[in-house]
Amino acid sequence: MSPTTETLTAERILEATEEVLRRHGPAKATVVDVARALGVSHGSVYRHFRTKAALREAVTQRWLDRASGRLAGIAARDSDPETRLRDWLSALFEAKRHKAGDDPELFATFSVLTGENSQVVDQHIADLLGQLTEILRDGVARGVFALDPAVTARAVFDATGRFHDPFYAREWGRPGIQAEFDAVVDLLLRGLRATGGPSKTS
Amino acid sequence: MSPTTETLTAERILEATEEVLRRHGPAKATVVDVARALGVSHGSVYRHFRTKAALREAVTQRWLDRASGRLAGIAARDSDPETRLRDWLSALFEAKRHKAGDDPELFATFSVLTGENSQVVDQHIADLLGQLTEILRDGVARGVFALDPAVTARAVFDATGRFHDPFYAREWGRPGIQAEFDAVVDLLLRGLRATGGPSKTS
Repeated sequence: MSPTTETLTAERILEATEEVLRRHGPAKATVVDVARALGVSHGSVYRHFRTKAALREAVTQRWLDRASGRLAGIAARDSDPETRLRDWLSALFEAKRHKAGDDPELFATFSVLTGENSQVVDQHIADLLGQLTEILRDGVARGVFALDPAVTARAVFDATGRFHDPFYAREWGRPGIQAEFDAVVDLLLRGLRATGGPSKTS
Repeated sequence: MSPTTETLTAERILEATEEVLRRHGPAKATVVDVARALGVSHGSVYRHFRTKAALREAVTQRWLDRASGRLAGIAARDSDPETRLRDWLSALFEAKRHKAGDDPELFATFSVLTGENSQVVDQHIADLLGQLTEILRDGVARGVFALDPAVTARAVFDATGRFHDPFYAREWGRPGIQAEFDAVVDLLLRGLRATGGPSKTS
């Protein structure tokens, strides 16, 4: 089957772009490479993505969204909020660790791309913070957690940065990293519990 | 007064080295530059530091030790362990923030040097973890904190990385960073409190 017999969708272009980025690296990959990989003209690619920058932004977004979809599913569960928070943080760490470990070249490529597309990254982080806030709000509603959900979501995200910020990727393969993750999460969960300190009765 | 009239001590060499590094940058600074700044022969410098690498290592150590001395003083105080822990974490953040903000070129220089001297950095982190463990152990002894001091010291250090890891230096000048720091420390202190969760009665 020739690739040109398939309909050229944005999704197919993004798939091909990711493969071209993996092969050529972020510095050398061009729209012409993407078009060639798909067996189409570069004009066809530009009909979906008006500039090379727009294409790079979209592929970065797709890469980041891949993890957040699964995480959104965990955040929306009806389970005990403590378990849900632990599962969510574990899934975030797992997703990042797998991305970094399974395909280090693609991970390095996307480290460059996320540096170029800070708005996309900011939106990704806002999405994740929204999911965390949702879990914490539910915990407060059930009387399991105390503290302001939005402020605390940010604190939990910041406090676990070592286990999701790509800057730390080189440490994720170290022995002991899982125990370090568990120790941080245990400590945070203790802090979140409604019995964890003087309750605010204002 | 000519500089050669003073006794050439290791400390004077390290001071001059820091100044030379600031002026020339870590890539270009040489032992000859240091000797020239002191008005001595490079042989005199080598009598104190046998290699250029040894000199760079020593100046890195001095830079790192500058903060940890003050922190050691806080860790050794006889005050309430909660206040002491909060003061210690604040002083660490303050010291790093000042280093990064007051003299960004020197900070960038030392970012290169710490990258070259990972053993010195590891020892610095071990020192800081030792101080944290000391505070937590005292807190446990007084019945204020629960949890294993050494494991928890590591968790507290990891959870506050955003506020001391030089990688995050560019974020330390942002508005809101102090509130984010406070939120993380509040959450950690809640977690540390002996009433923060089910006590271990094994």
